[in-house]
Amino acid sequence: MNPAAFLGTLALALAAAKVLGQAFDRVKLPPILGQILAGILLASVGGFPAEVLRGEAFTALSDLGLVFLLLLTGTESSLKEIRRAGGPSTLVALGGVAVPFALGVAAARWLGFGLPQALATGALFTPTSIGITAVTLLEAGRIRTRVGATLVGAAILDDVLALCLLAVVLGTGSPHAVLGKATVYFVLAGLFAWKILPPLYRQFRRIHLPEAPLTFVLIVTLGLAALAETVGLAGITGAFVAGLAVRERMGEEKLLDRVHAVAYGVFIPLFFVHLGSSLDLGGLGGLGRVG
Amino acid sequence: MNPAAFLGTLALALAAAKVLGQAFDRVKLPPILGQILAGILLASVGGFPAEVLRGEAFTALSDLGLVFLLLLTGTESSLKEIRRAGGPSTLVALGGVAVPFALGVAAARWLGFGLPQALATGALFTPTSIGITAVTLLEAGRIRTRVGATLVGAAILDDVLALCLLAVVLGTGSPHAVLGKATVYFVLAGLFAWKILPPLYRQFRRIHLPEAPLTFVLIVTLGLAALAETVGLAGITGAFVAGLAVRERMGEEKLLDRVHAVAYGVFIPLFFVHLGSSLDLGGLGGLGRVG
Repeated sequence: MNPAAFLGTLALALAAAKVLGQAFDRVKLPPILGQILAGILLASVGGFPAEVLRGEAFTALSDLGLVFLLLLTGTESSLKEIRRAGGPSTLVALGGVAVPFALGVAAARWLGFGLPQALATGALFTPTSIGITAVTLLEAGRIRTRVGATLVGAAILDDVLALCLLAVVLGTGSPHAVLGKATVYFVLAGLFAWKILPPLYRQFRRIHLPEAPLTFVLIVTLGLAALAETVGLAGITGAFVAGLAVRERMGEEKLLDRVHAVAYGVFIPLFFVHLGSSLDLGGLGGLGRVG
Repeated sequence: MNPAAFLGTLALALAAAKVLGQAFDRVKLPPILGQILAGILLASVGGFPAEVLRGEAFTALSDLGLVFLLLLTGTESSLKEIRRAGGPSTLVALGGVAVPFALGVAAARWLGFGLPQALATGALFTPTSIGITAVTLLEAGRIRTRVGATLVGAAILDDVLALCLLAVVLGTGSPHAVLGKATVYFVLAGLFAWKILPPLYRQFRRIHLPEAPLTFVLIVTLGLAALAETVGLAGITGAFVAGLAVRERMGEEKLLDRVHAVAYGVFIPLFFVHLGSSLDLGGLGGLGRVG
């Protein structure tokens, strides 16, 4: 890759994200939309920025941006509220799987598909993005409320339930295996966060190299995200769990402030720009002409 | 790329870098060597970490680590001392080009090469790595001294002189063009840093999005690095110039502290690990058998 093009595109992406984000904020629109628009514009001018935005390196930075976004969301969430909202969360999660599934099946049948295809279509509608749920609540300042905790808990459960349903309907695996792996993951992640994390952090703090505590947070986050991906869950679920653990078990304000700097100063704007750059507006235009 | 492998390798790389860096520090060895050893070990275990370490995404993160290292070095350097040391720096730079060039030519002639090949060999010995110079001085705590400033100034000049020499000897371009482009770059970068940066920063500070000042530093750094690459200089020279400008023209301690967090918490350890992972120790072994 051409280093000048890569470095230049990063500079352009960060500048466009902050400037357009601010412009949207000033006219009372969500700054996120301005940052996504920055990506759409950069991708549509073509040339080297469009090429870099599509590349593996920029995509990796953007993926890390999403991981940081969920890490921050976790640090802003209240585990106590999420636990307390267990009952309502379960109901919301069941509803959030059952309703889209039923509507998807019905719509596919109505369009003339056979039952197996209709069941598969329904299953594909079921996963709830914990990313969208958590970020919307975070930006609206509602993540620590009762309602916020209920929705976040529901999104996590929903992810697991949807995976089970997909396993049954698409035959991609046994639902028991999915449920078993997810359960083992959450139990181990919980044990790790509550029993192993605090003493491990005390050991790690004795490292005198610069920024060792901040690096420790990243190691925990990336590790839990990688394990989540390994058992079939979304990596960002792991990042969210890491955020909860960091807040509850090692939540020094100064450390959280440094996580915030890395997340919002570097990676998160790149995620939104990349999101915008990967929207296929040409496809939307085609849809308009067809409809 | 497999997300679990990528996230897991990042976690392993950061953990190994900090733990081995600390271990080296404890036995009075430079922590940098421990971090490089972490890379050697991770690459030699093979499997997914070795593959990710060689990949485009990890390489890009490592390149950004080097950019951050030079940015920090710039913020720690004293422009006043570098200017004051102009005379000695020029002498050191001329010596640093002339001596390796003469020795390289002589050695190549002695080994039986013709004059054109010998001149080319000599020219290849001339560039001084501003990266190694600056980082060594930074780690030794000597970057702000008279000697440190002289060496840093010499390394920058040396880079330009070596490019001119390479242009003449290898016929890769006109030395006037090289000198002209380098001069234009430094004049424009200086004008930008002194005249445009402060008012631009005042405008940017009015952006209320999180971490806008930190992002501004990154935009300036990546932009100056990209421009340096475009005119044929090393991108890290641009990052160093950005560091000087940030320190002199917008050097709030709180902002510099956040740059430090991003640099040492995330990117710089990845640079050293990547450096270690790309060492070809097999090649060294072969050399031993030949010699």
